[in-house]
Amino acid sequence: MTPLHIIKIGGNVIDNSENLYHFLKDFTALEGYKILVHGGGKVATQLSETLGIEAKLVDGRRITDIETLRVVTMVYGGLINKNIVAQLQRFGNNAIGLTGADGNFIRTKKRPVKTIDYGFVGDIDEKSIDPQNISRLMEAGFTPVFCAITHDGEGQLLNTNADTIASALAVSLAKLYSTTLVYCFEKKGVLMDINDEESIIRDIDPVRYEELKLKQIIHSGMLPKLDNAFTAISCGVKAVIIGRSDELSQLKNKQPFGTRLSKSI
Amino acid sequence: MTPLHIIKIGGNVIDNSENLYHFLKDFTALEGYKILVHGGGKVATQLSETLGIEAKLVDGRRITDIETLRVVTMVYGGLINKNIVAQLQRFGNNAIGLTGADGNFIRTKKRPVKTIDYGFVGDIDEKSIDPQNISRLMEAGFTPVFCAITHDGEGQLLNTNADTIASALAVSLAKLYSTTLVYCFEKKGVLMDINDEESIIRDIDPVRYEELKLKQIIHSGMLPKLDNAFTAISCGVKAVIIGRSDELSQLKNKQPFGTRLSKSI
Repeated sequence: MTPLHIIKIGGNVIDNSENLYHFLKDFTALEGYKILVHGGGKVATQLSETLGIEAKLVDGRRITDIETLRVVTMVYGGLINKNIVAQLQRFGNNAIGLTGADGNFIRTKKRPVKTIDYGFVGDIDEKSIDPQNISRLMEAGFTPVFCAITHDGEGQLLNTNADTIASALAVSLAKLYSTTLVYCFEKKGVLMDINDEESIIRDIDPVRYEELKLKQIIHSGMLPKLDNAFTAISCGVKAVIIGRSDELSQLKNKQPFGTRLSKSI
Repeated sequence: MTPLHIIKIGGNVIDNSENLYHFLKDFTALEGYKILVHGGGKVATQLSETLGIEAKLVDGRRITDIETLRVVTMVYGGLINKNIVAQLQRFGNNAIGLTGADGNFIRTKKRPVKTIDYGFVGDIDEKSIDPQNISRLMEAGFTPVFCAITHDGEGQLLNTNADTIASALAVSLAKLYSTTLVYCFEKKGVLMDINDEESIIRDIDPVRYEELKLKQIIHSGMLPKLDNAFTAISCGVKAVIIGRSDELSQLKNKQPFGTRLSKSI
């Protein structure tokens, strides 16, 4: 199968124009099919504050009311997404900026109200993404750039976690491509010693993962990220890499980059 | 050649959710290839006011400073564009929302500073649009929805007049498709009597246009619109129709719709 890289970046890349510039240059240099997924950043929070929209949190979870949805549609879908696309074009990468509404690429269901009403939040399920649909866009020569917005197919835009979008895209497209999912975060990878940025664990398979959990080397905050990664791998994703955006060029140069999770080392 | 309709809507459709709903339904029902181009609306002005950004005008022409560019990127490229796309998807139209940066579809040049510095405004020229590039997206099954933003190919987004974008798309795509350009505006068409909404002139060719100008039936405000329309026609566009958005369904039903400008009646 043809290789495909799906790369997710968050606020630590988006909020720093220099980091973003270098990342987008390295992303462009990466050969073969690729998809970029980006989260939000400080801009959405700043705009909300300026507009007097209070951030609503219940049990530490963010609530997306209609005003917040407007802000994220403007900032994620407009400002951040289109500036990323314009920069990618500058580097010669024929990017197209997308929400999940565009091309009906990611159709989600508004999260049902149980104890908490999360507001306009969309949950992805196994029917949310048609890989053939996204493949058609890539085969036509375009690089998809997704922001963290989806739709319900009934005309409603919905806020959806960017990590989840990246993972769902990877699982879906693994049916058509040899898919590697890359999460860029603030560390160089999963570390043996949290205080030593160079103590990167280069490879983890499910057996090693169990050992690292038993030895409590992998700490609590990393557990959901890695659990989700191994779920994606069990659903057909070739590998999940967790690393720092400024080291992405090592992927192109076939040098060690971040921590590589896969079925077997 | 395969028929293509390029339809431009402005604030009078965008600002009224009921008008927009019906227009998008009728747009979806229109058979064959189609492209939607939309301008702004009151939302951008309102957001600018809320953010304390003063509208800057020189000689009645709007200046796009960096703050205004941020607002239009958020509102045109995010809020309006993505909500239109989500609604089109609801009607079963596989729309993709775009700026000219996406897919490098419209590459413009920042307007040179002469007596006035218009700021971040992009001017279209004959090299701005590659029709094959847009054709690839349409042939892949997607309906392009353009907002009034372009880019310079060097990473800079630029504000560009939506009427001009629609006309330039039509001229470029006329090389590949039998292209009809439709401008939706507040009147049912070009009127014989400005006070009689039913006095629509159904067909105008260049000869009739000269007569109507001589008789001063076509008033000053309409002249640039019609001049541009006939320029587009002389560049290969099959016809330009000027009409009201709520009558678009008449186009599908092959009934008279608006005023039709063409090479010969």
